[in-house]
Amino acid sequence: MTEPKTLAIDETHDPALGSWVASANGHPDFPIQNLPLGVFSPPGKGPRGGIAIGDMILDLAALAMSGLLNGEARIAAQTAAGQALNPLLALGAGPRRALRREVSRLLSDSAHRVAVQPMLYDAAQATLQLPARIGDYSDFYVGIHHATNVGRLFRPDNPLLPNYKHVPIGYHGRASSVAVSGAKVRRPSGQRRAPDRDEPLFGRSGRLDYELELGVWIGRGNILGEPIAIGSAADHIAGLTLLNDWSARDFQAWEYQPLGPFLAKNFLTTVSPWIVTAEALAPFRVAQPPRPEGDPDPLPYLWDANDQATGGIAARLEVTIASQRMRNERLAPHRLSSGSATHMYWTIAQMVAHHSVGGCNLNPGDLLGTGTISGPDRASFGSLLELTAGGRDPVILPTGEERRFIEDGDEIVIAGRFEAKGFVPIGFGPCRGIVVTD
Amino acid sequence: MTEPKTLAIDETHDPALGSWVASANGHPDFPIQNLPLGVFSPPGKGPRGGIAIGDMILDLAALAMSGLLNGEARIAAQTAAGQALNPLLALGAGPRRALRREVSRLLSDSAHRVAVQPMLYDAAQATLQLPARIGDYSDFYVGIHHATNVGRLFRPDNPLLPNYKHVPIGYHGRASSVAVSGAKVRRPSGQRRAPDRDEPLFGRSGRLDYELELGVWIGRGNILGEPIAIGSAADHIAGLTLLNDWSARDFQAWEYQPLGPFLAKNFLTTVSPWIVTAEALAPFRVAQPPRPEGDPDPLPYLWDANDQATGGIAARLEVTIASQRMRNERLAPHRLSSGSATHMYWTIAQMVAHHSVGGCNLNPGDLLGTGTISGPDRASFGSLLELTAGGRDPVILPTGEERRFIEDGDEIVIAGRFEAKGFVPIGFGPCRGIVVTD
Repeated sequence: MTEPKTLAIDETHDPALGSWVASANGHPDFPIQNLPLGVFSPPGKGPRGGIAIGDMILDLAALAMSGLLNGEARIAAQTAAGQALNPLLALGAGPRRALRREVSRLLSDSAHRVAVQPMLYDAAQATLQLPARIGDYSDFYVGIHHATNVGRLFRPDNPLLPNYKHVPIGYHGRASSVAVSGAKVRRPSGQRRAPDRDEPLFGRSGRLDYELELGVWIGRGNILGEPIAIGSAADHIAGLTLLNDWSARDFQAWEYQPLGPFLAKNFLTTVSPWIVTAEALAPFRVAQPPRPEGDPDPLPYLWDANDQATGGIAARLEVTIASQRMRNERLAPHRLSSGSATHMYWTIAQMVAHHSVGGCNLNPGDLLGTGTISGPDRASFGSLLELTAGGRDPVILPTGEERRFIEDGDEIVIAGRFEAKGFVPIGFGPCRGIVVTD
Repeated sequence: MTEPKTLAIDETHDPALGSWVASANGHPDFPIQNLPLGVFSPPGKGPRGGIAIGDMILDLAALAMSGLLNGEARIAAQTAAGQALNPLLALGAGPRRALRREVSRLLSDSAHRVAVQPMLYDAAQATLQLPARIGDYSDFYVGIHHATNVGRLFRPDNPLLPNYKHVPIGYHGRASSVAVSGAKVRRPSGQRRAPDRDEPLFGRSGRLDYELELGVWIGRGNILGEPIAIGSAADHIAGLTLLNDWSARDFQAWEYQPLGPFLAKNFLTTVSPWIVTAEALAPFRVAQPPRPEGDPDPLPYLWDANDQATGGIAARLEVTIASQRMRNERLAPHRLSSGSATHMYWTIAQMVAHHSVGGCNLNPGDLLGTGTISGPDRASFGSLLELTAGGRDPVILPTGEERRFIEDGDEIVIAGRFEAKGFVPIGFGPCRGIVVTD
């Protein structure tokens, strides 16, 4: 059993490392130890790849042409010069890591300041875009507390189905409606069941919800018919993002049998703009929590001792709400929940191995969602459906407003932060959306 | 209420029209009245758009540069010169129809023979490809006899769920594993439930099945948040294809709760290579069969009188099987079923209107499946699951071989033919696949 290549901790993770980009030092999300990948448009210019550093963004198109890079790092920057990072993701971990090392060197050593400064843009002036063209988006259901909580609401007698502890349950989502943080959340219209009758009403969703998830960006793909072994899964995972799987619970309850959620989920999915790379995450990988006593062993195709030792993710995830009235009154956002990303029954490698075991091909830039990550108690539930017990127990906001589900004007923000003793914490940047009826 | 533009019957449908391409006249699929769109690679050349005519394919890249076209038709051919037809599909019906008219003229009037002949390739020498890059693939469930038959097997007490007659039930499928006719069908591995226990076994599927479906290619798309009204749906439908939704029934039964089919369906979906355009289909549109007495009326967003008058499709669809032994003995394929495409409870326009009613954006080149189209009796059932009653009553092949599900070496071919009195019949070309374990 060898340590996966992508888990190597190197000089780019050195907690003593600082940047001549002053805003990076102590930045909650983007210190020099992070260097996440994204796509941005500088003012008046077209989209291109970039790397977040403090409050700035490094232009990879300019860097590729600068003569400051060589070899694999230069190739990586060249593939990132376009309007989507799919070509860079397709290269796999080697060039991505080479680019990370070179950018870390350029942004830490002030000898490069004069050469690199012109390639930096103020993030506040830039427009962020989806980092890649998403070929396919699949959403899993690995948050076991969420699956249990929701299962209880939909099927009180049978919350966790018999397949749950054997199968990393997932389904195909809608790629076209995945949008980057800040996209307007239009309250969808659709069918819901009339009270106490097997007939529908049509109209705007009255039970609009968020779902706190992690997103996984696929790097190298696999060929149709050739599964990814779990021991190789890390080679195919480019990095992570935050993901909000907006959900219309009233539509979902009426439509989901027998083929699963459809319109309840496909009106919008929001992701945070930056890919926090597998390399950046290396210090924050922890052991996957052991399965509870009595749970079945995973089938061999889902079992890898190395993955069990490093498949957990030491991240704190939180969700806040700010109603229109709260924002008008300049009140701070209200925290709805805060929990740990370790509450996943299946690891990301298990998701990848399962998705492809029948031969399904994953492509660079595909997106996987983990499903809602809830902790064991109410303070860490990842959706309003769970927090309010299906709308029965409202959340009270600082203004005294009650929330059973999301109201128009509410801004929902998901944030996440990786923490590990001896390392500089890093974050995703926010994943936000304001709900409107228009 | 105006007749949809795409239903206009014009000189291109004239049954007296013949082509100087001799093989087109009397061709079962591709007479000059069809002119379907696809992507092909001539021997030793790269992929480009083409139009099938008899046993030949007209090269649209060459036609675009020939000087024989003007105006909208020329623009359409130019957008079809690349390796995927998405840009042509994005143009909508006008340019597509202009191209059809011009190609019909060029291939019927022998004055153009000398100029056009060099742009024709023998279809048998060409490699056919997917006609478009599929952004998203969604599969519906509009075959009510299929839904009832399958529902009875999975839920004997509750075959047709209460939402079925209100909601055009659908789910998101996997776009990456949609392949063109002829693609090898690799028997997938996965989890199935052990007999009489809530625990899984792992291995190759033992209950591999086909599903007879129509596929719908989306033309013009809609913007996220802006639904397609049912009265405008025809403007967004570019044409039809045959679709085989290969299914591993053992995996499906174990995994499908609560989020729907996933690995049971995503190892491969096969489509026929040609887009039979909405224009070519105009003579074969018939009234949608009236809903049975007592069925609920569709909600207003799913109701359009014009669609009810023309939303049915007069096509015969059939499935054949040829086992390895049958092919070795040079026996003709055995017909498994033959039925009519009119057995759809929801029209294609209803599928499009429903898919987008919550704001979900459809893009040019997206693919919708109808779901399995079965007729009311066994001779027209569109899957082995139904034909064999879940594997209980085997089909007997001419060799005496029994089939409960598909065996290795079996070739499954779906074919379809449009027929209407007074018009020349047209077809799709076959949708075929041979199942292997490798």
